[in-house]
Amino acid sequence: MAHLTDIEIAQAKELKHIKYVAQKLSIAEDDLEMYGKYKAKLPLDLIDEDKVKENNLVLVTALTPTPAGEGKTTVSIGLTEGLNKVGKQATVVLREPSLGPVFGIKGGAAGGGYSQVVPMEDINLHFTGDFNAVEKANNLLSALIDNNLQSKENNLNIDPRTILWKRVIDMNDRSLRQITIGLGGTANGIPREDGFNITPASEVMAILCMATSFDNLKERLGNIFIGFTFDKKPVFARDLKAQDAMAILLKDAIKPNLVQTLEENPAIIHGGPFANIAQGTNTIIATKMGLSLSNYVVTEAGFGADLGAEKFLNIKSQYAGLNPKAVVLVATIRALRHHGGSPKEEYNTPSLARVQEGFKNLEKHIENIRKYAIEPVVAINSFISDSEEEVNFVIDACANLGVKAVVSRGWAKGGEGTKELANAVVDVVENKATQFKPLYAWESPVKEKIETIAKEIYGALNVEYSKKAQLNLRRIDRLGFNDFAVCMAKTQKSFSDNDKLIGRPEGFTVTVREIEIAAGAQFIIPILGKMMRMPGLPAKPASENMTIDNKGVISGLS
Amino acid sequence: MAHLTDIEIAQAKELKHIKYVAQKLSIAEDDLEMYGKYKAKLPLDLIDEDKVKENNLVLVTALTPTPAGEGKTTVSIGLTEGLNKVGKQATVVLREPSLGPVFGIKGGAAGGGYSQVVPMEDINLHFTGDFNAVEKANNLLSALIDNNLQSKENNLNIDPRTILWKRVIDMNDRSLRQITIGLGGTANGIPREDGFNITPASEVMAILCMATSFDNLKERLGNIFIGFTFDKKPVFARDLKAQDAMAILLKDAIKPNLVQTLEENPAIIHGGPFANIAQGTNTIIATKMGLSLSNYVVTEAGFGADLGAEKFLNIKSQYAGLNPKAVVLVATIRALRHHGGSPKEEYNTPSLARVQEGFKNLEKHIENIRKYAIEPVVAINSFISDSEEEVNFVIDACANLGVKAVVSRGWAKGGEGTKELANAVVDVVENKATQFKPLYAWESPVKEKIETIAKEIYGALNVEYSKKAQLNLRRIDRLGFNDFAVCMAKTQKSFSDNDKLIGRPEGFTVTVREIEIAAGAQFIIPILGKMMRMPGLPAKPASENMTIDNKGVISGLS
Repeated sequence: MAHLTDIEIAQAKELKHIKYVAQKLSIAEDDLEMYGKYKAKLPLDLIDEDKVKENNLVLVTALTPTPAGEGKTTVSIGLTEGLNKVGKQATVVLREPSLGPVFGIKGGAAGGGYSQVVPMEDINLHFTGDFNAVEKANNLLSALIDNNLQSKENNLNIDPRTILWKRVIDMNDRSLRQITIGLGGTANGIPREDGFNITPASEVMAILCMATSFDNLKERLGNIFIGFTFDKKPVFARDLKAQDAMAILLKDAIKPNLVQTLEENPAIIHGGPFANIAQGTNTIIATKMGLSLSNYVVTEAGFGADLGAEKFLNIKSQYAGLNPKAVVLVATIRALRHHGGSPKEEYNTPSLARVQEGFKNLEKHIENIRKYAIEPVVAINSFISDSEEEVNFVIDACANLGVKAVVSRGWAKGGEGTKELANAVVDVVENKATQFKPLYAWESPVKEKIETIAKEIYGALNVEYSKKAQLNLRRIDRLGFNDFAVCMAKTQKSFSDNDKLIGRPEGFTVTVREIEIAAGAQFIIPILGKMMRMPGLPAKPASENMTIDNKGVISGLS
Repeated sequence: MAHLTDIEIAQAKELKHIKYVAQKLSIAEDDLEMYGKYKAKLPLDLIDEDKVKENNLVLVTALTPTPAGEGKTTVSIGLTEGLNKVGKQATVVLREPSLGPVFGIKGGAAGGGYSQVVPMEDINLHFTGDFNAVEKANNLLSALIDNNLQSKENNLNIDPRTILWKRVIDMNDRSLRQITIGLGGTANGIPREDGFNITPASEVMAILCMATSFDNLKERLGNIFIGFTFDKKPVFARDLKAQDAMAILLKDAIKPNLVQTLEENPAIIHGGPFANIAQGTNTIIATKMGLSLSNYVVTEAGFGADLGAEKFLNIKSQYAGLNPKAVVLVATIRALRHHGGSPKEEYNTPSLARVQEGFKNLEKHIENIRKYAIEPVVAINSFISDSEEEVNFVIDACANLGVKAVVSRGWAKGGEGTKELANAVVDVVENKATQFKPLYAWESPVKEKIETIAKEIYGALNVEYSKKAQLNLRRIDRLGFNDFAVCMAKTQKSFSDNDKLIGRPEGFTVTVREIEIAAGAQFIIPILGKMMRMPGLPAKPASENMTIDNKGVISGLS
């Protein structure tokens, strides 16, 4: 096989008109809102709650990843192709990629090799405008806040020093992390400190992903907590009458997007919060849409299972009443070597000893998934540098735990390379699935929820709270937000809050530095360690190598 | 007739699927890139340069406007309906509205009453994402500049104090006019002063509107002038290898958008620079697209004829080789009263004396249009408060100048109300059109170009240059940009650079405060007076009155 890049493989594919993909889901052409020939938005009235309960939801998550990522999206797409090959009607439901990282180091997020969703360029660029809509809704609220600060009518008496709401932009732009605005005299507003986060970190994105209907979206937008007045009263977006205008900006963004895989199977792509600083899963509406239209839905949650899967299960599934029937844990031999102590330069060098040591990380994730009463399947995402003895060790070690581990060759072979994985997943869904059990109830006390996650999932011995976090807890209590979900902000590189603790760390303490409130999303967000919400560009940005010719053919986008 | 709002009239219209509108232009359905059922992008290969030369271009402009605007868009749409009613195949080609003002005072810009383009909500909101694409391309360049400032690889040695390139956002947000960025330590970049302009003021928007092909777009993006190195060498976007990545972000935005009028006639809407601070016309590509597909094209240029029409003729038409055959000068009795000295509270109070005095403003615009060897038609955009004697005076006064003036009732009656106007326009196009003559050649010396506009069009006696402007002129000369077009930045409220000089001021001096360079657009931009490139929100933003129900029906958007 020639070594084609992802974009070359994607461009070589002759795409089917999206109406034919929609036919596989029994959607009438007239129900599609086409965006060109290969993308369409789906109307919300296609959601059928009975089907949502009836059909089968499979979550793809991963062990603790290396910075390159372990291929969850690629496995999710590949598994969907495989399920269709073994006779199941399956749809993959994914998050939308953020534009910022496309020009940075990470590149796009539409799968890879022969397991991709297409048109990959569009999906990685503006797609159907959802991120832009989120950005505009977020920034309209910012403009309304700053306008109110100096307004003589309806002035809400907001104390500018207490404003927690930040502007967002979908761009890797470190210079906007910390800024001062409103400079230049009375005509330019009230000077204050501010900053931009990247759009996937916006609470509006979190809200879009948690919304169950358009009315629910609007209510959540109104509930956004902005800060305090000078006399210490909380201020919400609804106090600025912002929710309808924000919802108007999101009227199309709330509709899920339909595209296709390389094997012409349906892919629904919608919403895109990051999993370290936000909930890391696609929208509730998209997942329900998939389940309404398809017997099997394969979906993914970001980073390792301690982040994405934990939030998918405790936050999204619990809130939306979803019942995931199987969890696929993606592992790579490379990541196992990493957790076994391999330096970066030796990630591609076989070492049974390192894989044996690194397996402890995977083992902990397996144990964790079982705490939700779900049976995991391990997918070994195949790389050329994997040795047979390393792979066999993982398969055997999983078997010792009663877990089926299967090599997934979707990257190289598409659905032909994932039939065994598909069969293993079907076996769990059909023979081993029960009702999943969340790890905590939203109504539990805040500290209890935080400690459940830290101890049960991360394996921490203790949770410590900084002075600031303790003050934050009192504020949460005062505002009556105790029964919100806990959406942890933690490094993706370790079970702990310390990047350096690879493998399966034990006996550690995590420190809650502060606790933020996302009242519209109904999250309280404990911040563990220093979390970055605005990435930067690398010394040589990916944009430098991108080209586009006069026929619109792009190269260098990955 | 019931008093319906614009949005109520638009919502009551049952829209035709856009493929039927395309059929009127002989466009095959397969050539359309649909954005939902009622919007589509048109591929550039539909442009036919022979047809562009053959078909008839009509420009709609106005007398010096009051702040409410005199209804150029409404007249343009109405005239198009009228032309179709009198048996011509006509398309209206307009600018896209900016989102920022929709939430401010101005509201949308999709016509009004029974002369609107629809779906008006979408056109006024994100539409097909073009503004977002412009914004992202602009801000990617900003991120690349700030990234380079602190990069250890390929550092271009840019002096941050000389950076002229600003970030943009399509939002009325005065707090972002003047900001400091890069605060918070070494990880967050190099601190410097910056600011956001509104997206229609971006040079990327100007470039999109001047581009004649995709390759030309890319070349222009590379030519953007950013600032200087510490050793005083100019830095361009191409030095950051930014042009391809920016063009990738604009790959769809370069394609014109097709929608429909309330009477189901074709409307092409594309690009949206403001006319006071930029060139104020839709894209060259859209105008050529219209002329390739339609026997008559009605288009508009922003604000009064001293701004929009001057730029449309000297910049756009001269560069693109267009030959406008008629100019419609929109006048309102209200604006004539204003130029006759009416205070705002009496704009709706008939006063023959004021209209007689105010007519001098219109007379000067008529004289100006004739300087281009084009015959104007005056369209009196009808208001309920117009008195018969005022209207008759205008018709007679125009007749004395040999100009046909016609009452335009498109707002109240659609095409039925503009047939007389349509016939007057057809008469000029068929019987009086010659080859239009630009007022200056781009190759002329810079000061000569500026003085030609100021003296011939504005009626100024003198042009003065500030110290800064004189330095700017030397810089332009040093950089070799003398043969760029002159894109004046001037108040729209007066022929002069002083808002207060209404009517037809004479004997005045204009002062060039500074001269900016838009090397990608090939503009030099003399700034006359203090120009604002980022509007603010009013004390009571329009967003407060907007609502959207759970069926997506919007109210309060105008």
